[in-house]
Amino acid sequence: VKLTLIFAEAGVDLVPPELWKHPSVKKWASKRGKSPKKCLLDISFHYSAMKELKDWWKRGRPDILHLCLLEALDSPLNRKGMLQVYAHTYAGKIMKFRQDVRIPKNYFRFIGLMEQLLTEGKVPPDSEDPLIKIEDTTLRAITSKCSHIYLMDEMGVKKSALSFAEEIVKHENPCIIIGCFQSGTFSPDIYMLADERVKIFDEALASWTVTSRVLTAIEIKLGLL
Amino acid sequence: VKLTLIFAEAGVDLVPPELWKHPSVKKWASKRGKSPKKCLLDISFHYSAMKELKDWWKRGRPDILHLCLLEALDSPLNRKGMLQVYAHTYAGKIMKFRQDVRIPKNYFRFIGLMEQLLTEGKVPPDSEDPLIKIEDTTLRAITSKCSHIYLMDEMGVKKSALSFAEEIVKHENPCIIIGCFQSGTFSPDIYMLADERVKIFDEALASWTVTSRVLTAIEIKLGLL
Repeated sequence: VKLTLIFAEAGVDLVPPELWKHPSVKKWASKRGKSPKKCLLDISFHYSAMKELKDWWKRGRPDILHLCLLEALDSPLNRKGMLQVYAHTYAGKIMKFRQDVRIPKNYFRFIGLMEQLLTEGKVPPDSEDPLIKIEDTTLRAITSKCSHIYLMDEMGVKKSALSFAEEIVKHENPCIIIGCFQSGTFSPDIYMLADERVKIFDEALASWTVTSRVLTAIEIKLGLL
Repeated sequence: VKLTLIFAEAGVDLVPPELWKHPSVKKWASKRGKSPKKCLLDISFHYSAMKELKDWWKRGRPDILHLCLLEALDSPLNRKGMLQVYAHTYAGKIMKFRQDVRIPKNYFRFIGLMEQLLTEGKVPPDSEDPLIKIEDTTLRAITSKCSHIYLMDEMGVKKSALSFAEEIVKHENPCIIIGCFQSGTFSPDIYMLADERVKIFDEALASWTVTSRVLTAIEIKLGLL
């Protein structure tokens, strides 16, 4: 099995043009010696600027993707080469992560990495085989190569973690989509990609908790743990 | 079962007196409008200052504890009230976390929280029943109340995640100790507390990955997932 894991609608984008002149954005950018258009939007630093932004509750949350990536890329499943990780951002960018990329554990360095990725298109910027790149593709194109697409959704059908894992490992190239935003629901486009909506716990769990639970169950089923 | 989970030797302490006058520490403190003695030591910001510090590779890593706490406190096991989380720092402080504490996902806010905790002794500072407090106790006193003490150690005996979990849930109040430092081994004091040393994977895993794997296996065994 080779699992495609997509962190969907992650609030990880550069500051949008309508906020480039906002005082809190300008102050933050100048403190860091960067132009506002090359800074990542982050609700912890740009809360006052973001209040009037469309869908603000789904944006400016690189911290959530950071936690999910650390969870996924250090996983035994990834170490064994059985995982392909993508992130899809609110603005529609698709990031592809090489299996051996090491994500900085420090949040600041992660922000710097994402800024480099979003402005240069790849990391490292001069690499022919980059560790992370922005792919000129769509979620539909990625998922269409997968045999079955599961969407983790608190309104989905409840399955036990192990029986869900058992199903997954029967597929050659299954796909799991995990929402990477703070609140709200997936956009209709995402729902339409899914073959099935699944939950593994009765309460809503954080994105990184869903990630670790699903991956651990698969690792157990595959005898990796 | 009520599991006591201890994150041991976490690199989460205030800047030690010998570094209060170091330029990189002073600059960082003044930028944040704080006295150096009230700032958390962080290798990302104080690398040049830390190079001559004893055991520097085990210190100044609040990011690791941050990830472990987010993993543990959002876990289904904790939500069901079956987990008690402690952190033990390099300098020997013991932090006790209430089950319903919400750890900030943003790293900066987490640093502010730890600084408040370490200077005031509790969070919130004026609470009679704080969400987090520094306990005037020792690891030995905490573990002596537990029926069996497991130390997660890459040099320990390999167990499969599920058979390990099965053992754990047979105890009324087991304890698991997970090292919360970047590299090096536990100090002898920690080894001496353990009844057993266990690993669940052949390669070294990050502290938060060990945390999520062990908790997930227990949650599966208890039928929570």
